[in-house]
Amino acid sequence: MSTSRDAFYMARAIQLAKKGRYTTDPNPRVGCVLVRDGVVIGEGWHAKAGLGHAEVEALKNVQDATGATAYVTLEPCSHQGKTPPCCDALISAGIARVVAAMQDPNPQVSGSGLEKLKAAGIEVGCGVLQEDAQALNRGFIKRMTENRPFVRSKLAMSLDGRTAMASGESKWITGAEARADVQRLRAESSAILTGINTVLADDPALNVRVDWVVEQPLRVVLDTHLNMPVTAKMAKLPGRSLILTCADDPQKQRALQQAGFDVYKLGGKNGRLDLHAVMDFLSQQQINELLVEAGSVLNGELLTEGLVDEYIIYMAPCILGDQGRGLFKLPGLQQMAEKKPLKLRDVRQVGADLKLTYTPL
Amino acid sequence: MSTSRDAFYMARAIQLAKKGRYTTDPNPRVGCVLVRDGVVIGEGWHAKAGLGHAEVEALKNVQDATGATAYVTLEPCSHQGKTPPCCDALISAGIARVVAAMQDPNPQVSGSGLEKLKAAGIEVGCGVLQEDAQALNRGFIKRMTENRPFVRSKLAMSLDGRTAMASGESKWITGAEARADVQRLRAESSAILTGINTVLADDPALNVRVDWVVEQPLRVVLDTHLNMPVTAKMAKLPGRSLILTCADDPQKQRALQQAGFDVYKLGGKNGRLDLHAVMDFLSQQQINELLVEAGSVLNGELLTEGLVDEYIIYMAPCILGDQGRGLFKLPGLQQMAEKKPLKLRDVRQVGADLKLTYTPL
Repeated sequence: MSTSRDAFYMARAIQLAKKGRYTTDPNPRVGCVLVRDGVVIGEGWHAKAGLGHAEVEALKNVQDATGATAYVTLEPCSHQGKTPPCCDALISAGIARVVAAMQDPNPQVSGSGLEKLKAAGIEVGCGVLQEDAQALNRGFIKRMTENRPFVRSKLAMSLDGRTAMASGESKWITGAEARADVQRLRAESSAILTGINTVLADDPALNVRVDWVVEQPLRVVLDTHLNMPVTAKMAKLPGRSLILTCADDPQKQRALQQAGFDVYKLGGKNGRLDLHAVMDFLSQQQINELLVEAGSVLNGELLTEGLVDEYIIYMAPCILGDQGRGLFKLPGLQQMAEKKPLKLRDVRQVGADLKLTYTPL
Repeated sequence: MSTSRDAFYMARAIQLAKKGRYTTDPNPRVGCVLVRDGVVIGEGWHAKAGLGHAEVEALKNVQDATGATAYVTLEPCSHQGKTPPCCDALISAGIARVVAAMQDPNPQVSGSGLEKLKAAGIEVGCGVLQEDAQALNRGFIKRMTENRPFVRSKLAMSLDGRTAMASGESKWITGAEARADVQRLRAESSAILTGINTVLADDPALNVRVDWVVEQPLRVVLDTHLNMPVTAKMAKLPGRSLILTCADDPQKQRALQQAGFDVYKLGGKNGRLDLHAVMDFLSQQQINELLVEAGSVLNGELLTEGLVDEYIIYMAPCILGDQGRGLFKLPGLQQMAEKKPLKLRDVRQVGADLKLTYTPL
């Protein structure tokens, strides 16, 4: 039986979980609040893989938690991982009641933590602010349930749907505030995906440039024919740069590895990398959230294959004209009836630009 | 000296003025409130050219207005038009104080109404909620001050900036609510402008289809070479259809006139109609507010010539792909530095679509 008090404390636990937004990969973001007699006696969150889970962090500075209620944004784990199971910690601390926002999304263990707590005589609730808790970990949940990363494509365009001039010139369509917002998107992501043509045209860094500590997301380049130049800027930057290819060219591969790249060969489809295989592979690499920053060819293919979960579009208040480059190459789309429907989820202004969030219908 | 009470009654006068939104052409929308001892004793608005002005309508049912304050959204007229001057009516009614939101924008008479009232011993104020009053009559004001109509271009596009498929198919990108909103835009407009290529492709009606009484706006087609078919649908519809051309073809002109069109010859520029001459002509025709519903060529030219005051863009939550048609043909725009900057003025959701309002910077 949950109450509005439960929602109040769970909201705080979600706030705490968000502190791990840029650092918990590949683990989920989790927060925990300990409450006894209406007083918060402990708070914790998971900061980084290998460090304490939220429950253990919350218990750390509490001398006596006997009889307290623990609010956790994710079902406490019952298995030994890099750290001991949180259920055991809650039980031995004498916690009387555990309220979870959601069950563990991993179908192998989902519910077992709550069962273990119940078996130890602890009162258990689940589902308080569940949607908010799910939104915290969309990538982790999708990887656990579908073995795929949560895929978000970021696009920056003029009002008339142009991402660059005909020449490819694209600096800058959007303003400084929107570009800073993109840095936050990157910082939240486990990996950033682009295509070889974007690399050949722009030699992008695809790194996170913020004034706080982050793990650099994995940089992933789809490069069917292994055309990556060994001089590409990203190979020298902190963090991993990964090339996915269909090509079998051990010499070029070695040269790229010496330059600092990881190179993996994956299956192809119609002469190009199979994008489903790419997603499977990235999921195996424990990529929870994938940010696509690509041109119209790769974005068109991802759209056609139904592989994007969310579009973030920054729309600048300017017009570039019909000669400019578009967002999606969709050669097969000829009739209005075939249009790709989306749903508008959010609109906000970022500097002078609009930030629009859409999801597939 | 104006007070918050003044703003309160002026806001009511502006509400009344809006009742004439669809019918006052070519006159301005004006509202009037009469107040004595904190009690509203009369209200009126201008409904239609030839009918009473707002002040006269407000006085109509008041037995004795002696000592009252009159709130008017526009300076009372001092000259004889189709109806007698409102200043005389206010003076003879014994009004003690007149508060106007703004002066008459016509430089020939601006301020003379207020002077006449002052000379009659009436206390006079001006400028209360001035910006709101100006927004009521942007077209009338621009025509009076610049001899040009207020030009608003309406565009409907997919999220990726496409107005139609490559084939020209465009039914329907936006939803029913957005299309109903366009009917209101049309109803508010004095004229609707399009190009001959749009007529040849779509044979549009360009009329107002609403369930209340409206004056049909003037339909204006730019047709440099007089290619309009005599069978075009719009010629048969209620309201005027006007062809502006550079061509000298008396026989075709007569045929079009017999079909129901008005035809005017205007000057050309580089083998096409001079758009500045078009705007001058429409202003002479007493067009206050011009709605552009055109394709990418005419929209590109209007943008290049700096002739559009406001863009209303309906953006549907769908993707049509790079083969679709764009919004603005701008062959001269090659570099990012030449981008056309706009300012975002308003965002709102209309059905599933976004309605975006931009003005030139």
